Amino acid sequence: MTHTTVHAYAAPAPKAPLERTTIERRALGEHDILIDIKFAGICHSDIHTVRGEWGHETFPIVPGHEIAGIVAEVGPGVTRYAPGDRVGVGCFVDSCRECDNCRAGLQQYCTGESGPVGTYAATDRDGEFTQGGYSTHIVVDENYAVRIPEALLLDAAAPLLCAGITLYSPLAHWQAGPGKKVAVVGLGGLGHMGVKIAHAMGAEVTVLSQSLRKKDDGLRLGADHYHATSDPATFLALADTFDLILNTVSADLDLDAYLGLLKTGGTMVQLGAPENALTVSPGSLYRRRRSFAGSMIGGIPETQEMLDFCAEHGIASEIELIPADRINEAYERVLASDVRYRFVIDTSTI
Amino acid sequence: MTHTTVHAYAAPAPKAPLERTTIERRALGEHDILIDIKFAGICHSDIHTVRGEWGHETFPIVPGHEIAGIVAEVGPGVTRYAPGDRVGVGCFVDSCRECDNCRAGLQQYCTGESGPVGTYAATDRDGEFTQGGYSTHIVVDENYAVRIPEALLLDAAAPLLCAGITLYSPLAHWQAGPGKKVAVVGLGGLGHMGVKIAHAMGAEVTVLSQSLRKKDDGLRLGADHYHATSDPATFLALADTFDLILNTVSADLDLDAYLGLLKTGGTMVQLGAPENALTVSPGSLYRRRRSFAGSMIGGIPETQEMLDFCAEHGIASEIELIPADRINEAYERVLASDVRYRFVIDTSTI
Repeated sequence: MTHTTVHAYAAPAPKAPLERTTIERRALGEHDILIDIKFAGICHSDIHTVRGEWGHETFPIVPGHEIAGIVAEVGPGVTRYAPGDRVGVGCFVDSCRECDNCRAGLQQYCTGESGPVGTYAATDRDGEFTQGGYSTHIVVDENYAVRIPEALLLDAAAPLLCAGITLYSPLAHWQAGPGKKVAVVGLGGLGHMGVKIAHAMGAEVTVLSQSLRKKDDGLRLGADHYHATSDPATFLALADTFDLILNTVSADLDLDAYLGLLKTGGTMVQLGAPENALTVSPGSLYRRRRSFAGSMIGGIPETQEMLDFCAEHGIASEIELIPADRINEAYERVLASDVRYRFVIDTSTI
Repeated sequence: MTHTTVHAYAAPAPKAPLERTTIERRALGEHDILIDIKFAGICHSDIHTVRGEWGHETFPIVPGHEIAGIVAEVGPGVTRYAPGDRVGVGCFVDSCRECDNCRAGLQQYCTGESGPVGTYAATDRDGEFTQGGYSTHIVVDENYAVRIPEALLLDAAAPLLCAGITLYSPLAHWQAGPGKKVAVVGLGGLGHMGVKIAHAMGAEVTVLSQSLRKKDDGLRLGADHYHATSDPATFLALADTFDLILNTVSADLDLDAYLGLLKTGGTMVQLGAPENALTVSPGSLYRRRRSFAGSMIGGIPETQEMLDFCAEHGIASEIELIPADRINEAYERVLASDVRYRFVIDTSTI
């Protein structure tokens, strides 16, 4: 069995623009599937990684962990998928499969020695360096792919594999639903999925955004309320209000101000990955038995559950579809928050 | 109706030693009870307050919010208690009674304009300055007292009113019990109650203490395991272990190290009130869906529940009984962590 050469867009070095290149995909193993990638979303993590901001040093890197495509071939032992199936791949492509979390389907929290194997810029269990979805094809183990329901368009479904599950998982875990007040901080690629999913779950949804610039969008996407965090009155008016706050913002925030918006027993969940440590006053927590939590994407079963939920509720990402030669431009626009709400690469243009 | 003059120990000024004095207690109102105080515990908060470290400026202050005594007289509208009843008073003596939390029996989290009325050094709803339990008598509304079961000795029960409920409430809220692994950080006045209560609830209990100095005590009190946090091996050996960690330490800790000991979905609860802000790395939370929470004493119904639980399980505080003229010496020993595990003042000596 030999490797297959496929086209991809890669960052050749830290901070260098991405360029068209070729990479090798492994031959199909017993449980592998070959996916003909149709679309790949652009996640802020991609940018952090290729700029070397998260410390990766092996280049070139092909980013992309919001992958939607069609199964092209399957290994001899594959039982879950057949050629022609619509599938997705998210942020990891393997895990130890033996720890309590892997057994419980919480592969994202794998406690094995290496943790979950990232879809790109990681060392796979066979020792190879993983390369992501800005590519025409990928080979993954069938147990780390999910089925994309027919009701979802592949392009708008791609961002569900990271942005979608990142919001769905905490909303499900902290039981957003009828009678619950949920706030989403930041209306970007993550936040807009939070609004849609929380609304579909039946929660009363409030967007807390720096300005009212995207207010019409927010309400259209399903928010019941929209407040500007640049206005100090927001924090007075909404004190002790929310059961759950999902913070999608990576920039440093006055966390005590946001914790003050939680009602007694409420939880704020950090979803972005800020560079700096998080600082809170003890009283922000103990004066109302509040919790400050973190959550990271979701496991394979929950990712499938999320896709099925989105299909059932007619939810997908709001996207701007781009050809591959506009990836570098798209990166600049992501950094400038100039996208509503997710760039998706048409990988047929690679 | 006139005020009654009673004896008490008060701090006349910030940082000044406490001295014997007299204070006024209000005449019995419709729902008031007059309590003949028998014992009062010494809580670290008392020391912070009389030293002006928490910003109080009205002196003299009579501290004490771990009060156990006997009902001496009752107001005409009192229905819950009769003279001769054994009762306790904890950290607050009133609250707004109208907010959602007060209605739910979570008076400690009262969201009324002034919050719960502290047992001392606070402004009562009638405008008077509250004075605490280092005194021979106190007058409180019957709705803010609890019944001390016959099975508990009054002296050892006194610290349950603050230290006991501070630990019981989070253990109950986060469902410590059979199959749950609970760690208690710090084996002091708070921590030793945590060990006893968590053990009685059926949890597997680990003490995380700076050294192994109190190990024998910890095991005798109900801990299954005892580890020194001064030994870095502790943090390696216990990674991803606990469902719940109760941090009773007010000193600055490496919180990330402790969060790393929580299993996926676990919660660390801050119970001490450190002076400095709490700082954690985002990854300590999101890599395992961990929560960092706070909790503060308990409401009246839960405090009663805790006393009944302690009576049923034969639990009380480990105390060193002192006469009132040793309060100042006891304060020095509390600051030096030289007490096993709670000083209780015999108020007949005031």
